[in-house]
Amino acid sequence: MTKNALLECHERIKPFIHKTVVLSSSLINEVVGAQIFFKCENFQRGGAYKMRGATNAILKLTDQQRLKGVVTHSSGNFAQAVSLGAKSLEVTAHIVMPTSAPEVKKTGVKQYQGIIYECEPTLKAREQTANEIAAKTGATLLHPSNDVDVIIGQGTAAIELLEEQPELNAIFCPVGGGGLIAGSALAATYFGKACKVFGGEPFEADDAYRSLQSGKIEGNVTTNTVADGLKTTLGDNNFPIIKEHVSAIIRVTEEEIISAMRLIWERMKIIVEPSSAVALAALISDKEKFKNQKVGIIISGGNVDLGKLPF
Amino acid sequence: MTKNALLECHERIKPFIHKTVVLSSSLINEVVGAQIFFKCENFQRGGAYKMRGATNAILKLTDQQRLKGVVTHSSGNFAQAVSLGAKSLEVTAHIVMPTSAPEVKKTGVKQYQGIIYECEPTLKAREQTANEIAAKTGATLLHPSNDVDVIIGQGTAAIELLEEQPELNAIFCPVGGGGLIAGSALAATYFGKACKVFGGEPFEADDAYRSLQSGKIEGNVTTNTVADGLKTTLGDNNFPIIKEHVSAIIRVTEEEIISAMRLIWERMKIIVEPSSAVALAALISDKEKFKNQKVGIIISGGNVDLGKLPF
Repeated sequence: MTKNALLECHERIKPFIHKTVVLSSSLINEVVGAQIFFKCENFQRGGAYKMRGATNAILKLTDQQRLKGVVTHSSGNFAQAVSLGAKSLEVTAHIVMPTSAPEVKKTGVKQYQGIIYECEPTLKAREQTANEIAAKTGATLLHPSNDVDVIIGQGTAAIELLEEQPELNAIFCPVGGGGLIAGSALAATYFGKACKVFGGEPFEADDAYRSLQSGKIEGNVTTNTVADGLKTTLGDNNFPIIKEHVSAIIRVTEEEIISAMRLIWERMKIIVEPSSAVALAALISDKEKFKNQKVGIIISGGNVDLGKLPF
Repeated sequence: MTKNALLECHERIKPFIHKTVVLSSSLINEVVGAQIFFKCENFQRGGAYKMRGATNAILKLTDQQRLKGVVTHSSGNFAQAVSLGAKSLEVTAHIVMPTSAPEVKKTGVKQYQGIIYECEPTLKAREQTANEIAAKTGATLLHPSNDVDVIIGQGTAAIELLEEQPELNAIFCPVGGGGLIAGSALAATYFGKACKVFGGEPFEADDAYRSLQSGKIEGNVTTNTVADGLKTTLGDNNFPIIKEHVSAIIRVTEEEIISAMRLIWERMKIIVEPSSAVALAALISDKEKFKNQKVGIIISGGNVDLGKLPF
């Protein structure tokens, strides 16, 4: 996963993704005491950064692989991204979704012509169902956060953010399966000037925090969090990158997540999902360390059930 | 209200306002069958385009007038804008608000150090209270939509939109007191290439539609609309401009407003208030006429009570 691999990936996916805007809020800057630049991947096609990695992975398939389609499992955003990316490239997308996935994300997949297979909301059930479909159809399994091409693709949001704000001292991402933070960490290493990368994670799904403590991939003890995109665990491809390039994982409470989400909605007038608010919540909870610094935040997505808001 | 007056105003207020982004949604383009460019004044300081006109009016006060402060009446967005603009320029702001104004807008005024005076939710009570304060304090009365400097200021959003999209065939605005649409109509006339201007208005507060029919300023028969910013009526300065330069006022039902609002929230991931959705609702209800055209929409504001959403 070289610097060139990231640059080539960025060129490859550019025709299929939006270059999303970077927004700021003077009030939030005041609250935090830092200059914050929000990379708005909630405005990305499919409503989340996942479109980047999914598109890259599909574009790297051979012609023969394309004919047999792709399969993935996801609680929502990667599912939508694979469906939309596959549709653009005329590839069949088989999507395994837990029964607990938000309705708005299932609707998104259907709109993009992905074929949904529902399963129990456990990682084991998701992986098993996806493997079965891969065996039966010959479809290529795309892992939502551990596939190398996916990790590289997710790093392109941070590349664009650093192009606009080359002097960033830090970038904050939410941490779920680890694809976004690993890709962002590579981008910060290759394209930043001493730009550190931090992860935000709910206390209620703190596998990445504990994995960095123990030095090996840990599972989640609970996943009782409003941040529905952050319930998954790290993988063997992204964990080594995270160990090497991520400065720290900062954990936040559910109250901190909801309060950061509300702050973004009310002050920035943008719709972000709870998982995205975790990054700002983490920065706020540790704000003394970032006084007067330039901090980037990847707003990962904006797919929320408007009928089920936490406030 | 010459072309030069608009240009000078734009230069005058630039240090105090944001140049807001212009966003698009391929899905909404498909739904409407046109290429739509949303000028995101919900991202403006104070959460609405009102900051433009308010700032211009305050900047045009004499030193002596500044010392005595300003007074206005508004259900919310102009109130916040005057408070924020006045605070930046160290001027006292007296704000008359109807008791029915959304809580989030009252909170905004307080944060910006405006002094609130509550009154009955009728235009008469609002005007009377504002006049009394003006008489007592010597503060200059700023009308939220009929003050000439305010009208000119509101036109600068359309100037910026046309700078980015010079080929627009039409611009849609919501119509409340008429300041935004009059300013936008001047901007389209001076800076557009045959760019027409259309207003969107709720059936439940269709004073502008009926005023254009009858040729004189009409009051509202009902104001039973979710679009809380559009309950006011036209004024003697903006009406002649609207008569001369606005092609049509298109009325929409409450269901059409809420459905357009939801479409924007879900697809664009931005928070817009019901009044802003009226412009898109009007375009959708008359979409056949705008097939394949380039249409600008002024998203007027994003100040909503998150606890009181209409969906």
